[in-house]
Amino acid sequence: MSEDARWLAAAAALAGRARPLSRPNPGVGAIVVKEGCVVARGWTQPGGRPHAEAVALAAAGDAARGATLYVTLEPCAHRSLRGPACADIVSAAGLERVVIGVMDPDPRTAGAGLARIRAAGLSAHYLPSDACARSLSGYLLSSRLGRPEVTLKLALSLDGCIALTSGESQWITGAEARAHTHAMRARHDAILVGGGTLRADSPRLDVRLPGLESRSPDRWVLTGGGVPVGWRALSSPEAITTMQGVHHLFVEGGARAATAFLKAGLVDRLLIYRAPVLLGGRPALGDFGLSALAQAHGVWHMTERRQLGRDTLEVYEARKLHEG
Amino acid sequence: MSEDARWLAAAAALAGRARPLSRPNPGVGAIVVKEGCVVARGWTQPGGRPHAEAVALAAAGDAARGATLYVTLEPCAHRSLRGPACADIVSAAGLERVVIGVMDPDPRTAGAGLARIRAAGLSAHYLPSDACARSLSGYLLSSRLGRPEVTLKLALSLDGCIALTSGESQWITGAEARAHTHAMRARHDAILVGGGTLRADSPRLDVRLPGLESRSPDRWVLTGGGVPVGWRALSSPEAITTMQGVHHLFVEGGARAATAFLKAGLVDRLLIYRAPVLLGGRPALGDFGLSALAQAHGVWHMTERRQLGRDTLEVYEARKLHEG
Repeated sequence: MSEDARWLAAAAALAGRARPLSRPNPGVGAIVVKEGCVVARGWTQPGGRPHAEAVALAAAGDAARGATLYVTLEPCAHRSLRGPACADIVSAAGLERVVIGVMDPDPRTAGAGLARIRAAGLSAHYLPSDACARSLSGYLLSSRLGRPEVTLKLALSLDGCIALTSGESQWITGAEARAHTHAMRARHDAILVGGGTLRADSPRLDVRLPGLESRSPDRWVLTGGGVPVGWRALSSPEAITTMQGVHHLFVEGGARAATAFLKAGLVDRLLIYRAPVLLGGRPALGDFGLSALAQAHGVWHMTERRQLGRDTLEVYEARKLHEG
Repeated sequence: MSEDARWLAAAAALAGRARPLSRPNPGVGAIVVKEGCVVARGWTQPGGRPHAEAVALAAAGDAARGATLYVTLEPCAHRSLRGPACADIVSAAGLERVVIGVMDPDPRTAGAGLARIRAAGLSAHYLPSDACARSLSGYLLSSRLGRPEVTLKLALSLDGCIALTSGESQWITGAEARAHTHAMRARHDAILVGGGTLRADSPRLDVRLPGLESRSPDRWVLTGGGVPVGWRALSSPEAITTMQGVHHLFVEGGARAATAFLKAGLVDRLLIYRAPVLLGGRPALGDFGLSALAQAHGVWHMTERRQLGRDTLEVYEARKLHEG
């Protein structure tokens, strides 16, 4: 990995701090580097403004002169009532170089940001970065498909159960796995459960990690009926196209909601927390319409595995996620 | 790990070659070491004789003089029509030291082998070895509980299914995992499937690995009815106490047989081959009688995880396996 690619990956890690408060804007990260040292950093602020570049360059001040700006997403080219275009801010900061990890698919920018910075006389490059693309996956998928990126969380036994036959399900996974789930909630714009799960478990679905309580995502229920105060109804998985400003959707179950999303082909990522227990109980998924085993193979690709106390977390991504 | 412990572990690895052809005798490994070099090796021969020590010492000949014998199991103290007692052979070989990894629970030996070797003037030690105990787990468990050690194999999807709802089950796991299963069969004395699986799949349950075909285990069916030629019937999981000379039993399914063994509390080890697919199909296990989640926790302990092509193998042992 080149020096530039490493700085972009660092900016991508920083971008994680923006989520999900930056919504409806994507969480972007920016780092100003001079002679191998970080001069300033920034990430998209709550509500979407100021943008990451503006934050980083304001923090850098004169130190930006002759420096390089690493930014995960192409600086925006459109001026709005909410603030000046980042391409203009970047052009005027005295920087020498700009390195961009992902080009912005927003038609108001889409190359115009990079072009304007170059026109201002800076050395500006697009260096495709997996780390940046990954940090912007929800935004990029939304731009391409007009719907949020969907992560399905499953907390399972070794034999794929989510409860005993009696319905007892608290707890299969341990405290570490549950804390990790809370951290994942804090990175999603919205969270969804099925109507049955809402009625049976009355889940709070909030983030119960010190300092992150404010990051609790919007709460949705998959139901054709009414919903309690503080919740919103989603009539079908396909209706996620109507979730305005939601780039990252976290589906937490139960089995019927998970099955419905899989049946609709609307799961992009699996988060599987697996406890070292056998249950012989209620399965995590119902029939989602596979007619042959051949259809099951090659769909899911493991991107991460880690131990969380006694439990194992595995992350799988659908192949299609990598196509775009 | 001490030098002695390392040689014992090497002897334990060697003992694997004896299984399952040594039955009804346990597979034992022996190494003769002199000045840090292996002078000779041996393992229990097909049918149980000659024993590992006899093989190793015959191979060593005069080179055994002043050497150390590492043997996984205490040399036998009983003379039989099938051969002399190993304790006598070991005592007469000119060895200087003997190191033993596991004391033999067989009442005909049970310390008498070690005592006789010491009485002959050799320096003889019992150095408890996990590796040796593991290699003899079936024999030790049989001695203690009067039944074979039971390994349950499950080939699963991520969501714990063993087939689509249509029944299609070939194949969930890939070629590497299936080859590993054949290698596992080759280390078991007997293999068992449920009556439904026998009728539905007509499994051959033999070892299809070049050079290991002769190691195909005895084939059993869990059924109250009749069985095809070449198969034996087991009326219930509890009836494994009647399986003469079987120390290692491999239960390959299906769901009903697996559930019956778990319900009877007669599974000592799980071999879980997991393919990166979701199926939403037939669950691996039925209700085996857990009445509370608390009963599920702390039972299974992971001892191994490895990648087999796209699939993952995890091995779990029941806590009780470690108690004896």
